[in-house]
Amino acid sequence: MGRTSSGTDEKLIQTGIRLARVRGLGGFTVRELCAESQVNLGMFHYCFINKDNFDRALLSTLYENLMKNIRLEVSDDKSARANVLNILLAIQRFVRENRRLLSSLAGDVFSGNAKIIDFIGRNFTHHISVLLAQLERAEKEGQLVLKDAANAALVLAMPVVFPQLVAGLDERVPLPWKGRVRPSVTALFSDKGAAERIQVLVGAVFKGEK
Amino acid sequence: MGRTSSGTDEKLIQTGIRLARVRGLGGFTVRELCAESQVNLGMFHYCFINKDNFDRALLSTLYENLMKNIRLEVSDDKSARANVLNILLAIQRFVRENRRLLSSLAGDVFSGNAKIIDFIGRNFTHHISVLLAQLERAEKEGQLVLKDAANAALVLAMPVVFPQLVAGLDERVPLPWKGRVRPSVTALFSDKGAAERIQVLVGAVFKGEK
Repeated sequence: MGRTSSGTDEKLIQTGIRLARVRGLGGFTVRELCAESQVNLGMFHYCFINKDNFDRALLSTLYENLMKNIRLEVSDDKSARANVLNILLAIQRFVRENRRLLSSLAGDVFSGNAKIIDFIGRNFTHHISVLLAQLERAEKEGQLVLKDAANAALVLAMPVVFPQLVAGLDERVPLPWKGRVRPSVTALFSDKGAAERIQVLVGAVFKGEK
Repeated sequence: MGRTSSGTDEKLIQTGIRLARVRGLGGFTVRELCAESQVNLGMFHYCFINKDNFDRALLSTLYENLMKNIRLEVSDDKSARANVLNILLAIQRFVRENRRLLSSLAGDVFSGNAKIIDFIGRNFTHHISVLLAQLERAEKEGQLVLKDAANAALVLAMPVVFPQLVAGLDERVPLPWKGRVRPSVTALFSDKGAAERIQVLVGAVFKGEK
Protein backbone atom coordinates (compact mmCIF):
# COMPACT_ATOMS: atom_id res chain seq x y z
CA MET A 1 0.00 0.00 0.00
CA GLY A 2 1.56 3.30 -1.06
CA ARG A 3 0.76 5.76 1.74
CA THR A 4 0.40 9.29 0.38
CA SER A 5 1.54 12.31 2.29
CA SER A 6 -1.66 14.13 1.36
CA GLY A 7 -3.69 12.15 3.86
CA THR A 8 -6.03 10.80 1.19
CA ASP A 9 -5.51 7.24 2.40
CA GLU A 10 -6.33 8.32 5.96
CA LYS A 11 -9.47 10.10 4.74
CA LEU A 12 -10.61 6.96 2.89
CA ILE A 13 -9.96 4.80 5.94
CA GLN A 14 -11.91 7.11 8.26
CA THR A 15 -14.89 7.20 5.88
CA GLY A 16 -14.61 3.44 5.53
CA ILE A 17 -14.71 2.97 9.32
CA ARG A 18 -17.82 5.15 9.51
CA LEU A 19 -19.54 3.17 6.73
CA ALA A 20 -18.41 -0.24 8.03
CA ARG A 21 -19.70 0.51 11.55
CA VAL A 22 -23.22 0.87 10.13
CA ARG A 23 -23.21 -1.51 7.17
CA GLY A 24 -20.37 -3.98 7.81
CA LEU A 25 -17.25 -4.35 5.63
CA GLY A 26 -19.17 -5.89 2.76
CA GLY A 27 -21.89 -3.23 2.96
CA PHE A 28 -20.34 -0.59 0.68
CA THR A 29 -18.60 -0.49 -2.68
CA VAL A 30 -15.35 1.28 -3.56
CA ARG A 31 -17.42 3.69 -5.66
CA GLU A 32 -19.63 4.59 -2.68
CA LEU A 33 -16.58 4.96 -0.45
CA CYS A 34 -14.94 7.34 -2.90
CA ALA A 35 -18.12 9.42 -3.35
CA GLU A 36 -18.55 9.72 0.44
CA SER A 37 -14.88 10.69 0.83
CA GLN A 38 -14.85 13.05 -2.17
CA VAL A 39 -11.83 11.20 -3.50
CA ASN A 40 -11.56 10.00 -7.07
CA LEU A 41 -11.50 6.31 -7.94
CA GLY A 42 -7.98 6.47 -9.39
CA MET A 43 -6.62 7.78 -6.09
CA PHE A 44 -8.27 4.86 -4.24
CA HIS A 45 -6.51 2.36 -6.53
CA TYR A 46 -3.23 4.26 -6.21
CA CYS A 47 -3.45 4.07 -2.38
CA PHE A 48 -4.92 0.59 -1.83
CA ILE A 49 -4.90 -1.28 -5.20
CA ASN A 50 -8.16 -3.12 -4.31
CA LYS A 51 -10.98 -3.49 -1.75
CA ASP A 52 -9.35 -6.49 -0.04
CA ASN A 53 -6.24 -4.44 0.76
CA PHE A 54 -8.40 -1.55 1.84
CA ASP A 55 -10.44 -3.77 4.19
CA ARG A 56 -7.23 -5.06 5.78
CA ALA A 57 -5.89 -1.54 6.27
CA LEU A 58 -9.22 -0.47 7.79
CA LEU A 59 -9.25 -3.38 10.24
CA SER A 60 -5.62 -2.71 11.18
CA THR A 61 -6.39 0.95 11.90
CA LEU A 62 -9.38 -0.03 14.07
CA TYR A 63 -7.36 -2.65 15.91
CA GLU A 64 -4.50 -0.21 16.47
CA ASN A 65 -6.98 2.06 18.33
CA LEU A 66 -7.89 -0.81 20.63
CA MET A 67 -4.24 -1.65 21.31
CA LYS A 68 -3.40 2.01 21.94
CA ASN A 69 -6.15 2.16 24.59
CA ILE A 70 -5.03 -1.09 26.16
CA ARG A 71 -1.39 0.06 26.32
CA LEU A 72 -2.51 3.29 28.00
CA GLU A 73 -4.34 1.35 30.71
CA VAL A 74 -1.84 -1.39 31.50
CA SER A 75 1.12 -0.70 33.74
CA ASP A 76 3.37 -2.88 35.88
CA ASP A 77 2.83 -0.45 38.80
CA LYS A 78 -0.81 -1.52 38.93
CA SER A 79 -2.04 -4.83 40.29
CA ALA A 80 -2.76 -7.63 37.82
CA ARG A 81 -6.40 -7.40 38.87
CA ALA A 82 -6.62 -3.68 38.06
CA ASN A 83 -4.89 -4.24 34.71
CA VAL A 84 -7.24 -7.12 33.80
CA LEU A 85 -10.28 -5.01 34.71
CA ASN A 86 -9.05 -2.14 32.53
CA ILE A 87 -8.18 -4.40 29.59
CA LEU A 88 -11.69 -5.87 29.71
CA LEU A 89 -13.29 -2.44 29.85
CA ALA A 90 -11.21 -1.34 26.83
CA ILE A 91 -12.23 -4.48 24.90
CA GLN A 92 -15.88 -3.90 25.90
CA ARG A 93 -15.83 -0.30 24.57
CA PHE A 94 -14.12 -1.42 21.34
CA VAL A 95 -16.53 -4.28 20.64
CA ARG A 96 -19.52 -2.12 21.55
CA GLU A 97 -18.46 0.68 19.20
CA ASN A 98 -17.86 -1.71 16.32
CA ARG A 99 -20.43 -4.38 17.07
CA ARG A 100 -22.21 -4.40 13.72
CA LEU A 101 -18.94 -4.60 11.83
CA LEU A 102 -17.54 -7.24 14.21
CA SER A 103 -20.72 -9.33 14.17
CA SER A 104 -20.54 -9.54 10.38
CA LEU A 105 -16.82 -10.37 10.65
CA ALA A 106 -17.83 -13.17 13.06
CA GLY A 107 -20.06 -14.41 10.23
CA ASP A 108 -17.04 -14.65 7.92
CA VAL A 109 -14.96 -16.32 10.64
CA PHE A 110 -17.54 -18.95 11.68
CA SER A 111 -18.38 -19.57 8.02
CA GLY A 112 -14.77 -20.71 7.73
CA ASN A 113 -13.45 -17.93 5.46
CA ALA A 114 -9.80 -19.04 5.58
CA LYS A 115 -8.35 -15.76 4.25
CA ILE A 116 -10.07 -13.69 6.97
CA ILE A 117 -9.30 -16.25 9.70
CA ASP A 118 -5.65 -16.21 8.73
CA PHE A 119 -5.51 -12.40 8.71
CA ILE A 120 -7.20 -12.13 12.13
CA GLY A 121 -5.09 -14.91 13.64
CA ARG A 122 -1.87 -13.25 12.47
CA ASN A 123 -2.72 -9.64 13.28
CA PHE A 124 -5.45 -9.32 15.88
CA THR A 125 -4.44 -11.41 18.86
CA HIS A 126 -2.15 -8.97 20.69
CA HIS A 127 -4.96 -8.03 23.09
CA ILE A 128 -5.29 -11.72 24.04
CA SER A 129 -1.53 -11.86 24.66
CA VAL A 130 -1.65 -8.80 26.92
CA LEU A 131 -4.65 -10.20 28.84
CA LEU A 132 -2.92 -13.58 29.17
CA ALA A 133 0.30 -11.97 30.40
CA GLN A 134 -1.55 -10.20 33.23
CA LEU A 135 -3.45 -13.38 34.13
CA GLU A 136 -0.20 -15.36 34.17
CA ARG A 137 1.25 -12.73 36.49
CA ALA A 138 -1.82 -13.10 38.76
CA GLU A 139 -1.40 -16.88 38.63
CA LYS A 140 2.25 -16.58 39.75
CA GLU A 141 1.22 -14.20 42.52
CA GLY A 142 -1.31 -16.82 43.71
CA GLN A 143 -4.33 -14.61 42.97
CA LEU A 144 -6.27 -16.78 40.55
CA VAL A 145 -9.20 -19.05 41.46
CA LEU A 146 -8.88 -20.97 38.18
CA LYS A 147 -5.67 -22.98 37.87
CA ASP A 148 -5.08 -22.02 34.28
CA ALA A 149 -4.57 -18.41 33.14
CA ALA A 150 -5.83 -19.27 29.65
CA ASN A 151 -9.03 -20.73 31.04
CA ALA A 152 -9.50 -17.60 33.15
CA ALA A 153 -9.13 -15.57 29.95
CA LEU A 154 -11.98 -17.56 28.35
CA VAL A 155 -14.26 -17.01 31.35
CA LEU A 156 -13.52 -13.28 31.31
CA ALA A 157 -13.55 -12.53 27.59
CA MET A 158 -16.56 -14.49 26.32
CA PRO A 159 -19.28 -12.54 28.21
CA VAL A 160 -17.54 -9.30 27.25
CA VAL A 161 -17.31 -9.99 23.52
CA PHE A 162 -20.20 -12.23 22.47
CA PRO A 163 -23.23 -10.39 23.91
CA GLN A 164 -22.06 -7.38 21.89
CA LEU A 165 -21.73 -9.47 18.74
CA VAL A 166 -25.29 -10.75 19.25
CA ALA A 167 -26.44 -7.16 19.84
CA GLY A 168 -24.64 -6.14 16.64
CA LEU A 169 -26.36 -8.94 14.75
CA ASP A 170 -29.74 -7.84 16.14
CA GLU A 171 -29.08 -4.35 14.73
CA ARG A 172 -28.42 -5.86 11.30
CA VAL A 173 -31.16 -8.53 11.27
CA PRO A 174 -33.72 -8.03 14.06
CA LEU A 175 -33.81 -11.30 16.01
CA PRO A 176 -37.22 -12.94 16.42
CA TRP A 177 -36.84 -13.39 20.19
CA LYS A 178 -40.09 -13.79 21.95
CA GLY A 179 -41.69 -13.99 25.39
CA ARG A 180 -39.42 -15.06 28.24
CA VAL A 181 -36.24 -14.60 26.25
CA ARG A 182 -37.10 -10.99 25.46
CA PRO A 183 -35.75 -9.38 28.69
CA SER A 184 -32.27 -10.68 27.99
CA VAL A 185 -32.17 -8.41 24.93
CA THR A 186 -32.22 -5.42 27.26
CA ALA A 187 -29.26 -6.84 29.18
CA LEU A 188 -27.49 -7.41 25.85
CA PHE A 189 -27.76 -3.78 24.83
CA SER A 190 -27.22 -1.94 28.08
CA ASP A 191 -23.83 -0.50 29.03
CA LYS A 192 -24.76 -0.89 32.69
CA GLY A 193 -25.36 -4.61 32.12
CA ALA A 194 -21.95 -4.94 30.44
CA ALA A 195 -20.15 -3.12 33.27
CA GLU A 196 -21.87 -5.33 35.88
CA ARG A 197 -20.86 -8.46 33.95
CA ILE A 198 -17.21 -7.39 33.97
CA GLN A 199 -17.22 -6.61 37.71
CA VAL A 200 -18.77 -9.98 38.58
CA LEU A 201 -16.40 -11.86 36.29
CA VAL A 202 -13.24 -10.27 37.65
CA GLY A 203 -14.56 -10.99 41.16
CA ALA A 204 -15.09 -14.62 40.14
CA VAL A 205 -11.67 -15.22 38.66
CA PHE A 206 -9.58 -13.44 41.29
CA LYS A 207 -9.29 -14.60 44.89
CA GLY A 208 -10.57 -12.34 47.66
CA GLU A 209 -13.98 -10.82 48.16
CA LYS A 210 -16.54 -11.23 45.36
CA MET B 1 -43.05 -33.83 6.32
CA GLY B 2 -44.75 -37.18 5.88
CA ARG B 3 -43.36 -39.42 8.64
CA THR B 4 -43.27 -43.04 7.51
CA SER B 5 -43.92 -45.87 9.88
CA SER B 6 -40.98 -47.78 8.42
CA GLY B 7 -38.47 -45.59 10.26
CA THR B 8 -36.79 -44.51 7.03
CA ASP B 9 -37.08 -40.87 8.01
CA GLU B 10 -35.49 -41.63 11.38
CA LYS B 11 -32.67 -43.53 9.65
CA LEU B 12 -31.98 -40.59 7.33
CA ILE B 13 -31.99 -38.15 10.27
CA GLN B 14 -29.55 -40.28 12.29
CA THR B 15 -27.17 -40.59 9.33
CA GLY B 16 -27.58 -36.85 8.74
CA ILE B 17 -26.66 -36.07 12.35
CA ARG B 18 -23.56 -38.24 12.05
CA LEU B 19 -22.49 -36.52 8.81
CA ALA B 20 -23.36 -33.01 10.03
CA ARG B 21 -21.32 -33.46 13.22
CA VAL B 22 -18.21 -33.98 11.10
CA ARG B 23 -18.88 -31.84 8.03
CA GLY B 24 -21.56 -29.31 9.06
CA LEU B 25 -25.07 -29.10 7.60
CA GLY B 26 -23.83 -27.82 4.25
CA GLY B 27 -21.11 -30.50 4.08
CA PHE B 28 -23.08 -33.30 2.43
CA THR B 29 -25.51 -33.68 -0.45
CA VAL B 30 -28.85 -35.51 -0.44
CA ARG B 31 -27.25 -38.08 -2.74
CA GLU B 32 -24.42 -38.74 -0.23
CA LEU B 33 -26.91 -38.89 2.62
CA CYS B 34 -29.01 -41.48 0.79
CA ALA B 35 -25.98 -43.59 -0.15
CA GLU B 36 -24.73 -43.57 3.46
CA SER B 37 -28.21 -44.48 4.72
CA GLN B 38 -28.85 -47.11 2.01
CA VAL B 39 -32.12 -45.36 1.23
CA ASN B 40 -33.18 -44.46 -2.29
CA LEU B 41 -33.48 -40.86 -3.42
CA GLY B 42 -37.23 -41.14 -4.04
CA MET B 43 -37.81 -42.14 -0.44
CA PHE B 44 -35.85 -39.08 0.74
CA HIS B 45 -38.09 -36.80 -1.30
CA TYR B 46 -41.20 -38.64 -0.12
CA CYS B 47 -40.15 -38.09 3.53
CA PHE B 48 -38.66 -34.62 3.45
CA ILE B 49 -39.43 -33.01 0.04
CA ASN B 50 -36.08 -31.14 0.03
CA LYS B 51 -32.78 -30.56 1.88
CA ASP B 52 -34.02 -27.42 3.65
CA ASN B 53 -36.87 -29.36 5.26
CA PHE B 54 -34.49 -32.17 6.10
CA ASP B 55 -32.02 -29.77 7.74
CA ARG B 56 -34.81 -28.32 9.88
CA ALA B 57 -35.97 -31.79 10.94
CA LEU B 58 -32.38 -32.74 11.79
CA LEU B 59 -31.85 -29.63 13.92
CA SER B 60 -35.18 -30.18 15.68
CA THR B 61 -34.24 -33.78 16.51
CA LEU B 62 -30.86 -32.64 17.89
CA TYR B 63 -32.46 -29.87 19.90
CA GLU B 64 -35.11 -32.22 21.28
CA ASN B 65 -32.25 -34.33 22.72
CA LEU B 66 -30.89 -31.29 24.53
CA MET B 67 -34.32 -30.37 25.90
CA LYS B 68 -34.96 -33.95 27.02
CA ASN B 69 -31.69 -33.90 28.99
CA ILE B 70 -32.48 -30.51 30.50
CA ARG B 71 -35.99 -31.63 31.54
CA LEU B 72 -34.49 -34.72 33.19
CA GLU B 73 -32.13 -32.55 35.26
CA VAL B 74 -34.44 -29.74 36.35
CA SER B 75 -36.82 -30.23 39.24
CA ASP B 76 -38.58 -27.87 41.63
CA ASP B 77 -37.38 -30.03 44.53
CA LYS B 78 -33.82 -28.99 43.80
CA SER B 79 -32.35 -25.58 44.56
CA ALA B 80 -32.22 -23.00 41.77
CA ARG B 81 -28.43 -23.17 42.01
CA ALA B 82 -28.36 -26.95 41.49
CA ASN B 83 -30.77 -26.65 38.56
CA VAL B 84 -28.72 -23.90 36.92
CA LEU B 85 -25.53 -25.94 37.31
CA ASN B 86 -27.18 -28.97 35.70
CA ILE B 87 -28.70 -26.97 32.84
CA LEU B 88 -25.26 -25.51 32.07
CA LEU B 89 -23.64 -28.94 32.14
CA ALA B 90 -26.30 -30.26 29.75
CA ILE B 91 -25.77 -27.31 27.39
CA GLN B 92 -22.00 -27.83 27.61
CA ARG B 93 -22.29 -31.52 26.63
CA PHE B 94 -24.66 -30.68 23.78
CA VAL B 95 -22.51 -27.90 22.33
CA ARG B 96 -19.38 -29.99 22.74
CA GLU B 97 -20.89 -32.99 20.92
CA ASN B 98 -22.12 -30.84 18.06
CA ARG B 99 -19.48 -28.16 18.00
CA ARG B 100 -18.48 -28.43 14.35
CA LEU B 101 -22.08 -28.34 13.21
CA LEU B 102 -22.97 -25.50 15.61
CA SER B 103 -19.89 -23.47 14.69
CA SER B 104 -20.90 -23.57 11.03
CA LEU B 105 -24.48 -22.68 12.06
CA ALA B 106 -22.99 -19.70 13.93
CA GLY B 107 -21.45 -18.72 10.59
CA ASP B 108 -24.91 -18.65 8.98
CA VAL B 109 -26.35 -16.74 11.93
CA PHE B 110 -23.64 -14.07 12.15
CA SER B 111 -23.62 -13.76 8.35
CA GLY B 112 -27.22 -12.61 8.78
CA ASN B 113 -28.98 -15.57 7.09
CA ALA B 114 -32.53 -14.43 7.93
CA LYS B 115 -34.20 -17.81 7.24
CA ILE B 116 -31.89 -19.65 9.67
CA ILE B 117 -32.07 -16.86 12.27
CA ASP B 118 -35.86 -16.96 12.14
CA PHE B 119 -35.94 -20.74 12.49
CA ILE B 120 -33.54 -20.73 15.46
CA GLY B 121 -35.31 -17.81 17.14
CA ARG B 122 -38.68 -19.53 16.85
CA ASN B 123 -37.64 -23.07 17.76
CA PHE B 124 -34.39 -23.18 19.71
CA THR B 125 -34.76 -20.84 22.65
CA HIS B 126 -36.56 -23.11 25.14
CA HIS B 127 -33.30 -23.85 26.95
CA ILE B 128 -32.80 -20.11 27.48
CA SER B 129 -36.34 -19.88 28.89
CA VAL B 130 -35.69 -22.75 31.32
CA LEU B 131 -32.36 -21.21 32.41
CA LEU B 132 -34.01 -17.79 32.83
CA ALA B 133 -36.87 -19.28 34.87
CA GLN B 134 -34.42 -20.80 37.35
CA LEU B 135 -32.40 -17.58 37.53
CA GLU B 136 -35.60 -15.58 38.14
CA ARG B 137 -36.47 -17.99 40.92
CA ALA B 138 -32.99 -17.47 42.42
CA GLU B 139 -33.46 -13.71 42.08
CA LYS B 140 -36.79 -13.87 43.99
CA GLU B 141 -35.15 -16.02 46.65
CA GLY B 142 -32.45 -13.34 47.04
CA GLN B 143 -29.64 -15.62 45.85
CA LEU B 144 -28.29 -13.67 42.86
CA VAL B 145 -25.26 -11.38 42.92
CA LEU B 146 -26.30 -9.73 39.65
CA LYS B 147 -29.53 -7.73 39.88
CA ASP B 148 -30.87 -8.97 36.60
CA ALA B 149 -31.58 -12.66 35.90
CA ALA B 150 -31.13 -12.11 32.16
CA ASN B 151 -27.72 -10.56 32.70
CA ALA B 152 -26.76 -13.51 34.91
CA ALA B 153 -27.80 -15.80 32.03
CA LEU B 154 -25.40 -13.98 29.70
CA VAL B 155 -22.52 -14.29 32.17
CA LEU B 156 -23.21 -18.01 32.59
CA ALA B 157 -23.99 -19.06 29.03
CA MET B 158 -21.34 -17.26 26.97
CA PRO B 159 -18.25 -19.06 28.39
CA VAL B 160 -20.14 -22.35 28.09
CA VAL B 161 -21.19 -21.98 24.47
CA PHE B 162 -18.61 -19.87 22.64
CA PRO B 163 -15.31 -21.59 23.51
CA GLN B 164 -16.87 -24.77 22.06
CA LEU B 165 -17.90 -22.93 18.89
CA VAL B 166 -14.34 -21.66 18.51
CA ALA B 167 -13.04 -25.20 19.11
CA GLY B 168 -15.51 -26.47 16.48
CA LEU B 169 -14.26 -23.86 14.04
CA ASP B 170 -10.66 -24.87 14.74
CA GLU B 171 -11.57 -28.45 13.82
CA ARG B 172 -12.98 -27.24 10.49
CA VAL B 173 -10.33 -24.61 9.64
CA PRO B 174 -7.21 -24.89 11.83
CA LEU B 175 -6.74 -21.48 13.43
CA PRO B 176 -3.33 -19.84 12.94
CA TRP B 177 -2.87 -19.06 16.64
CA LYS B 178 0.67 -18.54 17.62
CA GLY B 179 2.95 -18.12 20.60
CA ARG B 180 1.37 -16.79 23.78
CA VAL B 181 -2.17 -17.35 22.57
CA ARG B 182 -1.47 -21.02 21.87
CA PRO B 183 -2.06 -22.35 25.44
CA SER B 184 -5.62 -21.08 25.42
CA VAL B 185 -6.37 -23.60 22.66
CA THR B 186 -5.78 -26.38 25.18
CA ALA B 187 -8.24 -24.76 27.59
CA LEU B 188 -10.71 -24.47 24.69
CA PHE B 189 -10.63 -28.16 23.95
CA SER B 190 -10.41 -29.70 27.40
CA ASP B 191 -13.51 -31.02 29.19
CA LYS B 192 -11.81 -30.35 32.51
CA GLY B 193 -11.38 -26.69 31.51
CA ALA B 194 -15.07 -26.47 30.60
CA ALA B 195 -16.21 -28.03 33.90
CA GLU B 196 -13.98 -25.62 35.86
CA ARG B 197 -15.41 -22.67 33.96
CA ILE B 198 -18.96 -23.70 34.87
CA GLN B 199 -18.12 -24.15 38.57
CA VAL B 200 -16.45 -20.74 38.79
CA LEU B 201 -19.28 -19.03 36.92
CA VAL B 202 -22.06 -20.49 39.07
CA GLY B 203 -20.03 -19.49 42.15
CA ALA B 204 -19.77 -15.96 40.74
CA VAL B 205 -23.43 -15.45 39.98
CA PHE B 206 -24.89 -16.98 43.16
CA LYS B 207 -24.39 -15.53 46.62
CA GLY B 208 -22.49 -17.57 49.20
CA GLU B 209 -19.02 -19.07 49.06
CA LYS B 210 -17.14 -18.89 45.74
